[in-house]
Amino acid sequence: MKWDAWGDPALAKELPPDVKGLLAAALGITGDAAPGPALDEVRLHPSRLAADDLAALAALVGEAHVSAADADRLPRAGGKSTPDLLRRRSRDRQDAPDAVVLPGDEDEITAVLALCAERRIAVVPFGGGTSVVGGLDPERGPLRAVVSLDLRRLDALIDLDETSGEAVLGAGLTGPAAEALLAERGWELGHYPQSFRYATIGGFAATRSSGQDSAGYGRFDDMVRGLRVVTPAGTLDLGRAPASAAGPDLRQLFLGSEGTLGVITAVRLRVHPLPALKAYEAWSFPDFATGSAALRAVEQQGTGPTVIRLSDEAETMVNLAMTEQIGGAPAVSGCLAVTVFEGSAEQVATRQELTRAALLAAGGTSLGEAPARAWEHGRFNAPYLRDSLLDAGALCETLETATSWSRLPGLRAAVTEALTGALPGALVLCHISHVYPTGASLYFTVVAALGDEPLDRWAAAKHAAGDAILAAGGTITHHHAVGADHRPWMTAEIGDLGVRILRAVKAELDPAGILNPGKLIP
Amino acid sequence: MKWDAWGDPALAKELPPDVKGLLAAALGITGDAAPGPALDEVRLHPSRLAADDLAALAALVGEAHVSAADADRLPRAGGKSTPDLLRRRSRDRQDAPDAVVLPGDEDEITAVLALCAERRIAVVPFGGGTSVVGGLDPERGPLRAVVSLDLRRLDALIDLDETSGEAVLGAGLTGPAAEALLAERGWELGHYPQSFRYATIGGFAATRSSGQDSAGYGRFDDMVRGLRVVTPAGTLDLGRAPASAAGPDLRQLFLGSEGTLGVITAVRLRVHPLPALKAYEAWSFPDFATGSAALRAVEQQGTGPTVIRLSDEAETMVNLAMTEQIGGAPAVSGCLAVTVFEGSAEQVATRQELTRAALLAAGGTSLGEAPARAWEHGRFNAPYLRDSLLDAGALCETLETATSWSRLPGLRAAVTEALTGALPGALVLCHISHVYPTGASLYFTVVAALGDEPLDRWAAAKHAAGDAILAAGGTITHHHAVGADHRPWMTAEIGDLGVRILRAVKAELDPAGILNPGKLIP
Repeated sequence: MKWDAWGDPALAKELPPDVKGLLAAALGITGDAAPGPALDEVRLHPSRLAADDLAALAALVGEAHVSAADADRLPRAGGKSTPDLLRRRSRDRQDAPDAVVLPGDEDEITAVLALCAERRIAVVPFGGGTSVVGGLDPERGPLRAVVSLDLRRLDALIDLDETSGEAVLGAGLTGPAAEALLAERGWELGHYPQSFRYATIGGFAATRSSGQDSAGYGRFDDMVRGLRVVTPAGTLDLGRAPASAAGPDLRQLFLGSEGTLGVITAVRLRVHPLPALKAYEAWSFPDFATGSAALRAVEQQGTGPTVIRLSDEAETMVNLAMTEQIGGAPAVSGCLAVTVFEGSAEQVATRQELTRAALLAAGGTSLGEAPARAWEHGRFNAPYLRDSLLDAGALCETLETATSWSRLPGLRAAVTEALTGALPGALVLCHISHVYPTGASLYFTVVAALGDEPLDRWAAAKHAAGDAILAAGGTITHHHAVGADHRPWMTAEIGDLGVRILRAVKAELDPAGILNPGKLIP
Repeated sequence: MKWDAWGDPALAKELPPDVKGLLAAALGITGDAAPGPALDEVRLHPSRLAADDLAALAALVGEAHVSAADADRLPRAGGKSTPDLLRRRSRDRQDAPDAVVLPGDEDEITAVLALCAERRIAVVPFGGGTSVVGGLDPERGPLRAVVSLDLRRLDALIDLDETSGEAVLGAGLTGPAAEALLAERGWELGHYPQSFRYATIGGFAATRSSGQDSAGYGRFDDMVRGLRVVTPAGTLDLGRAPASAAGPDLRQLFLGSEGTLGVITAVRLRVHPLPALKAYEAWSFPDFATGSAALRAVEQQGTGPTVIRLSDEAETMVNLAMTEQIGGAPAVSGCLAVTVFEGSAEQVATRQELTRAALLAAGGTSLGEAPARAWEHGRFNAPYLRDSLLDAGALCETLETATSWSRLPGLRAAVTEALTGALPGALVLCHISHVYPTGASLYFTVVAALGDEPLDRWAAAKHAAGDAILAAGGTITHHHAVGADHRPWMTAEIGDLGVRILRAVKAELDPAGILNPGKLIP
């Protein structure tokens, strides 16, 4: 993963001329952004750890698995939000973890946590580094230093129970590594968020991730049957059965805990046989309200698409859903919807037929396979586009929420108004990518001129959007998690008493407060 | 509800002669049990509350809504387990709550909790009184008295959002009352546990109930979109969206909290339109292993039955699944399975066709509609049978668990062995009534001679079964909850650290420890 942008440098792309023209015409952007520092020009604050601290850590995990070198600290300095990238492009001194520690097993994690509690060192659990909410910021709170606890060595397929359809996966496995291990045996997890290529099993659990196939395979939390968590107070092994009435479901305290309550080391997950067949169909709707009602009908009738999503008019017009064609002449009029079906031949046929009937009845026009395949082809590439836009002088960032179907139109209007109010002239695009019987998510993409003080201007827009989300009955985040960036809204989200509950649990598990300070819990 | 047995006295049934013959032949039971005391012969310990306490409570909820009369205390003295009924039939002095309080709204509940904390009075939240795990025992812990907080006045359909398919229901609504209010508007919740006719919305939430239609409509916790909880530390309003990544899911702390963390006052639930069509089909399998594999195939393929269940050979032989024919000549050979399908005509046809194909391929023989309809006709009547068996001198009790498909045969064998080891000669019947892609529940019915000291003998059997469940990888309860009876296994279920988490949450919300002492949390 590039240190100052998304992903694989080989996949970075020049913006098509059409997009440059669009940026100039719509947003008045003419010049490229000033280039950031080269890697060897980046200046980090020096590590606050002493040689003695590093030696003590090395005694626990081995010399090769502790580093205070800038080249190791910098890639763990934060996540991949647009503010993260803007900070990374700064020529000022940047903050970073004081060291990187790569434990090899639970015992080493237990020992590292004990040492850090004793020496007053904060610990930021680190998976793929794809947070877009400041979840990896190297905050020390009141402590004297902070280390990044990189879990990549926990990379085993620990167990595969083919009768039950359950796999136990190490927290450090990336999406592709996990799927490759499962695919060798004929199985699939089916969790494909946009961060899939880099994000990890532990990160998916810690952030309540939701993938693009959520209509078919559920959110990541729906897939979790059990998890192991190492905390400063001991280790938890939660989840004995597919369902239980043995009190509160404690797994649900650690799903979404974002490294503040413990370190997730392994996750037992529901898996399914690799699907025999896959079918694609794209649709056009005259407007977002009609398309949204159509998605609602599909989900409430339970017709069973694996993927179903809807772009609004603006997103459809710039072909954002099909990254290869972005900025070209509109490929689809109205609002583009994409459906994908997976399963046995019979299941795919039945599900597609029922879904087609519901979408036709709701006013949709079939566009055939091509636009749906084009969406799938580029499904993980939007972050590359964001980087190119940034280089071209455009601020591009996303935010997302969810609410019930009845509140969805009001929520969309309120967030759009807040964003365009704070960033006059900005382009605001929206899509629905996760549907439930009772509601759906809304995902907004904002493009504006980078201009002066982009960090402050984005902060103001984000603040206005967050307030609008809570006021309109949405959740502050449907799948990006809380981190540092959404923390100001947690009291509104769960109430004072909800915050007190989280603090009480944290005090029990992490009395020294070493775990990811400044994140999630106000 | 009868004070010393299940349900409506008008529905009580004489055992058919065949059953009496079976009891004599199989278990050596010849004489009836000694009759218990009549209502006016029952002696309760006197209320420990002073007139001043009762006046203070009455000042909060009104004179008409506080009672220390034995006639009001007795029906709230416990739940409906077989040990509960045996205790109720005792001529010794019985314990009961010191008063019954019926609050009318959340403000009154808040005030009652504050008064009780100040005066050191325990509070047992009370819904339908159907606990079979000692969840309603009038335990005082270290406090001076205990009141039953009966929530029946919270009985409104507070909101119905027909666009989103969400209803907000008062915690005190019974199953039939809730369904009647929804049916008037064309909607259904679809939660039908055996306790349906008496149990309440708040009770379903507090115990993580699972209904007989769980394959189609999910467990009760799956249906919950939001809940309101009054605690001594304040009121929580949880659940802003159908799904969220805003940290731990705190709803999941109160689902299954069994009155120990707060009083659930209202629940926002996913509802569905009343189904247009319902179809029935029963099946026979040569043995339990074949039938179990067939249910697994159906659930893992996702063919969509609303109900699917399988009785073992013994349960099938005594026709336990069809209460009208119990004890008669076996109506079905091998193992009986029941399927029910609900939805639109098209959905029912598709789902039944796919399910048929899977069951046929797995070795099933269709028996047509009749046995499935007979099961549905008697679906809520098993507790009446239990009462009649008790009168006839037979100890009859149930217990249940769940695990992954791969562990299911071992779990069934271990529990059966534990029960027959502790109760030699007992009849042990088993069925699967809740299936998941990764596993299933097991529900055991035990029938033995009542004999001497039945409470002690059942306690020994229950103890052996509980240990066997944990050792074989099951959960101590799939849908009966924990109460007092399963509390000894909670440490094994969630670990020492899991227990510490629950205690920390309780200390934050209920520092005086007034809420349902002695239940759930070790």
